Amino acid sequence: MKILVINAGSSSLKYQLYNMTDETVLASGRVERIGMDSSIVTHEPADKPEVRHVSEILDHTTAVKRVIDMLTDAEHGVLHNMNEIDAVGHRIVHGGETFKDSVVVNQEVKLEIKRLFDLAPLHNPAHMMGINAVEANLPNVPQVVVFDTAFHQTMPRTSYLYPIPTVLYNRHKVRRYGFHGTSHKYVSSQASAFLGQPLEQLKMVSCHIGNGASCTAILDGKSFDTSMGMTPLEGLMMGTRSGDLDPAIVPYVMNKEELTLNEVNSMLNKHSGMLAVSGLSSDMREVEQAMNEGDSRAKLAFDMYVYRLRKYIGAYAAGMNGIDVLLFTAGVGENSSTLRRAVCEGLTFLGIELDEERNSVRSKETRYISADSSKVKVLVVPTNEELLIARDTYELVQRKQNS
Amino acid sequence: MKILVINAGSSSLKYQLYNMTDETVLASGRVERIGMDSSIVTHEPADKPEVRHVSEILDHTTAVKRVIDMLTDAEHGVLHNMNEIDAVGHRIVHGGETFKDSVVVNQEVKLEIKRLFDLAPLHNPAHMMGINAVEANLPNVPQVVVFDTAFHQTMPRTSYLYPIPTVLYNRHKVRRYGFHGTSHKYVSSQASAFLGQPLEQLKMVSCHIGNGASCTAILDGKSFDTSMGMTPLEGLMMGTRSGDLDPAIVPYVMNKEELTLNEVNSMLNKHSGMLAVSGLSSDMREVEQAMNEGDSRAKLAFDMYVYRLRKYIGAYAAGMNGIDVLLFTAGVGENSSTLRRAVCEGLTFLGIELDEERNSVRSKETRYISADSSKVKVLVVPTNEELLIARDTYELVQRKQNS
Repeated sequence: MKILVINAGSSSLKYQLYNMTDETVLASGRVERIGMDSSIVTHEPADKPEVRHVSEILDHTTAVKRVIDMLTDAEHGVLHNMNEIDAVGHRIVHGGETFKDSVVVNQEVKLEIKRLFDLAPLHNPAHMMGINAVEANLPNVPQVVVFDTAFHQTMPRTSYLYPIPTVLYNRHKVRRYGFHGTSHKYVSSQASAFLGQPLEQLKMVSCHIGNGASCTAILDGKSFDTSMGMTPLEGLMMGTRSGDLDPAIVPYVMNKEELTLNEVNSMLNKHSGMLAVSGLSSDMREVEQAMNEGDSRAKLAFDMYVYRLRKYIGAYAAGMNGIDVLLFTAGVGENSSTLRRAVCEGLTFLGIELDEERNSVRSKETRYISADSSKVKVLVVPTNEELLIARDTYELVQRKQNS
Repeated sequence: MKILVINAGSSSLKYQLYNMTDETVLASGRVERIGMDSSIVTHEPADKPEVRHVSEILDHTTAVKRVIDMLTDAEHGVLHNMNEIDAVGHRIVHGGETFKDSVVVNQEVKLEIKRLFDLAPLHNPAHMMGINAVEANLPNVPQVVVFDTAFHQTMPRTSYLYPIPTVLYNRHKVRRYGFHGTSHKYVSSQASAFLGQPLEQLKMVSCHIGNGASCTAILDGKSFDTSMGMTPLEGLMMGTRSGDLDPAIVPYVMNKEELTLNEVNSMLNKHSGMLAVSGLSSDMREVEQAMNEGDSRAKLAFDMYVYRLRKYIGAYAAGMNGIDVLLFTAGVGENSSTLRRAVCEGLTFLGIELDEERNSVRSKETRYISADSSKVKVLVVPTNEELLIARDTYELVQRKQNS
């Protein structure tokens, strides 16, 4: 079975084509600047050179058509024809309280995703364009939607409710949803397999540290609490997002700087975090480099980032009354040994002992970075959200065919 | 030396008269509904019956005059005449970054408190009315101001800066200040004396749990981090305040419910927290009672309250890489054995062992509630902010007289 995984943004579309027989990626790529005059398609077949095309792609339907053209291209393609695409899996940011798991797309599912536009105004409408674009190009191919929020639907009310008037939950669905769920689910199950211990016996804290970042407490294999909230703004300091903040700062700053609701949102989501404190970059690699060259603002940004992450690890250890496994994943989590060292150095009281040599190894494999004597096992677990989307899609489509 | 301690609110004024020879309270009381038609003065002399007077008190100057009248009253008074008042100490909520300690009031100090009105618009203007009212009534008596924020001025930048554009700190002083500093300072020093261990050897987490509530990490006797932020809204769930929240909820709710900046502030400060979740009361005693009678919303409110507090204790243990002492103070912290039990039950991984019998004792003394074998010492330490204000006032006025 061959599965196309799609992550549709408002002006971009990323894709991977999986051969599920051996879970290999046959091709991947992206369409950028959809709706603009010079759209770019970058196509990377597994065993052939990368291709780049600039043309005018005005909408997502055309973008999907171009992807199919690439996948079936005589020279650059990896398929004989588009009938070889057995199913399509979509990444969807917000599943609200409705979607506790991945589902096959039908009319009702589409309606419900639409009802959730309000909660993810930047993401869900774009995903919907992706779904419709696939429908237009591949009308008979089953589609599956995989939600960033679904894994966190197991959180207890004490974790997901906010202490604000109940009407805001009842009327406007204001609660913690959490994101990066596909990643936290994938890496926690990878970690359990690696350790040879069932998830049910482990108290884990999973740190997904990329440009966006979130921390999840995983108890009995289920999300127990997570740092992102109703939106991805809450929680850890991130590349360009502030994370936690005195909520009173929002109206204070709106008043002082005469900002609209959109402007304050944009300030906190796009112009804060690492970027704002370092005054330099939202990219951890650049901040680390500047720090190593003696830049004091970069050092401050790094220290704040680490300190705020460390507090979350402690908070979740307290939330679960213990921690057996601490894991790092995603771009920064997998690659920055400096970050991991800084976080763990301040957590020896939990029984965390880092092995400096293991921590320095660069690898694409799940691995220990704690010492054998460490009470808490510390792991690096490469994430692979696309693969999990492909797997969910595969499983649901097979189940449907067999039923 | 006799010192009058004053806590002036916008329509109220609380007072205590201390005899500093033995730190006894000679009289205390309060004026309520200042500026309204039926203002109430309640005066409680130490060894005489309480008196209550209803009259029209239009401003703070009149209120202070009535307090002096009461203190020197032939029947209800405790002083022969007002010349016996040697100094006045004021509680001031916000000292910004200027005031790192208590100071004697002069023209420059008054100007600076005024400059900070913006940061504490509900409190500092009222305190200023209190200072001016004392000046009008007792022009030759030295006054001292004691700030809720001062103790927290030792926090490192990693604790007090927010990851938002730097211009907001430079231009509008947006940073974490923290509050309840007088209390956290007092109880941490009491705890050190009780344990017979110098503050410099202790990693403490101090939980001031009243209607307002905050948690402070105290390292080397200095505030290292604290849960309240630029305003008292951030941090723990409180009686009527939300505490931590996805900052994006603020603009979202403003938009959905068409709220002004003042309305959203008021919602989060006055209509959230325990009150909102329980749908019943902001008072922990009432919530506990309802919970014991089987009220599920009261139970949820209690559980959320405890869970959020526990996360802060874990976060600060992680922030300091360890915890030696956990202490509870203020109304709820000193009196609710149920709350303390619930918090500590979930923290056994830190080496916390509660002694159930000790925890059940009601007392006005500093005491252990942990078992002798507990790795972390858990204490109840009654707070006394007024006494600390009186002490600071005494010390500063003496120093001034001797210089």
